[in-house]
Amino acid sequence: MEFLNPRPGVLYLGIDGGGSKCRATVVAQDYRGSAVAGPANPFQNMDQALDSIVDAAAGALADAGLPSSAMGKLVAGVGLAGVNIPRIFRQVSDWQHPFARLYLTTDIHIACLGAHGGEDGAVIVAGTGSVGYACRNGISHNFGAHGFPFGDKGSGAWLGLEAMKAILLAMDELGPATSLTAAIEAHLSTSGLNVIAAMAGATSRTYGSLAPLVLSQAEAGDAVAQAIVQEGAAYLEALAGKLLDTGADSFCMLGGLSPRIIPWMSREVTEHLVDSRADPDIGAVLYGMAQHERQSLAG
Amino acid sequence: MEFLNPRPGVLYLGIDGGGSKCRATVVAQDYRGSAVAGPANPFQNMDQALDSIVDAAAGALADAGLPSSAMGKLVAGVGLAGVNIPRIFRQVSDWQHPFARLYLTTDIHIACLGAHGGEDGAVIVAGTGSVGYACRNGISHNFGAHGFPFGDKGSGAWLGLEAMKAILLAMDELGPATSLTAAIEAHLSTSGLNVIAAMAGATSRTYGSLAPLVLSQAEAGDAVAQAIVQEGAAYLEALAGKLLDTGADSFCMLGGLSPRIIPWMSREVTEHLVDSRADPDIGAVLYGMAQHERQSLAG
Repeated sequence: MEFLNPRPGVLYLGIDGGGSKCRATVVAQDYRGSAVAGPANPFQNMDQALDSIVDAAAGALADAGLPSSAMGKLVAGVGLAGVNIPRIFRQVSDWQHPFARLYLTTDIHIACLGAHGGEDGAVIVAGTGSVGYACRNGISHNFGAHGFPFGDKGSGAWLGLEAMKAILLAMDELGPATSLTAAIEAHLSTSGLNVIAAMAGATSRTYGSLAPLVLSQAEAGDAVAQAIVQEGAAYLEALAGKLLDTGADSFCMLGGLSPRIIPWMSREVTEHLVDSRADPDIGAVLYGMAQHERQSLAG
Repeated sequence: MEFLNPRPGVLYLGIDGGGSKCRATVVAQDYRGSAVAGPANPFQNMDQALDSIVDAAAGALADAGLPSSAMGKLVAGVGLAGVNIPRIFRQVSDWQHPFARLYLTTDIHIACLGAHGGEDGAVIVAGTGSVGYACRNGISHNFGAHGFPFGDKGSGAWLGLEAMKAILLAMDELGPATSLTAAIEAHLSTSGLNVIAAMAGATSRTYGSLAPLVLSQAEAGDAVAQAIVQEGAAYLEALAGKLLDTGADSFCMLGGLSPRIIPWMSREVTEHLVDSRADPDIGAVLYGMAQHERQSLAG
């Protein structure tokens, strides 16, 4: 990674924290180590998030062959879900952390920095949820997300919910028959209207678990599944258009859904697609590095 | 009500039980009384449901000027939400109830019986949820319902969710501007993306509370609100078509949304609309009466 140039003698830490896990990477000129710890979404659970960050950092130090006493020397770039909420950002900022420095930003910001090797750029994340993000000259632009069930169009959760709607309409013969019915029945190990009980109160993650079936049925030619995937892809294209409108000349697509939904997007949009250069934890290292550099120059 | 002919000397009870309340009506040749008690959805809470039924029955007896000792003489027709689930139906059937007889059926069945004065017929209920139901020669047909967020298309909850989606798309300039934005912001006493926090984790009832705004904006000419209402109305038309296909020659529209969504349905469908003759609690009385008659004849 030619864009990752740690200053001699400085130990950098990158933290990528979200609702399911926390990934930490330690980077120095002669050291490199990574580790994963528990959930780190401070909006969902502040204490757990802070514990997970320290756990992951300790693991990354050990993986790099560094003593735990090096914790206090780490220059940490920390990207977390939930800190887009100002109150949560302030609470994490007030934390008496064990590092030398802590530079805090959002999870999507470090994802974008990683994807573009620390440069300005734009990303769409299409996983359980969906979001578009661009950062240019220090100004961030967010589009979409907004949460399930009213937001996150084109995401895995959205695909799963639309598929559930479609098979229930088909069962009532109020919508066209679809191979999604058999696929979802098999996935849920049940049949007919029993799919309702199987999905009652389901989380966005559970809806998202249906998304691969929707893509498979669409790829196999089912018209109902294709219509759903096409509507989702059209929304992601519109998100991409918004990102390009901010001045970005390219974007990356991240998230588990991306490899399979990109083929459904128009060439006009995907010609602006570029490959991601590094993961969010490296983006967090780059963020901490840049902020530290700026402060050192200022101070 | 010329269709309500209690046998001399018999005391009838009708119970209409649902997730928010339980309504009871006592009917005899010279007596009439009604009362309302707490929630009676045995799927949500069995003990509470059975308590509410007895409370409501006691209230109805008192309202009719009858002594509480008459409880043991009541021939009860009981229509409850939740007993469409076989396990729940069996549990309520096994109840050691305080009545002379208890004839159990679904809430939608007694609604249909009430609406058609005890005759075969069809109903669409459009309230927080939506459902189509027809009963003919003892055979019931159900269409729709299935629960929020994947079912209940055209319902109040569905209108509210679609409106939330639309205003979030509009805020991102990924969908057309709509007067729904200002209407929902005012209703939620907040603005912009803060509507997300106000609606995060909302129940179907909370989504349904947005439905009157959607209808108002549609009536006022907002194209986005009109498109939502038209899609909902088209679904309810399709439900009506299914009901007519079962052999019904007319249907009633019940539920709080109906008066305002009927104007959006096509004349071709609404020409089969008839007015409801009585409320579900009277439908429950009629159900108990008919079942009791049948058993008396058989025994």
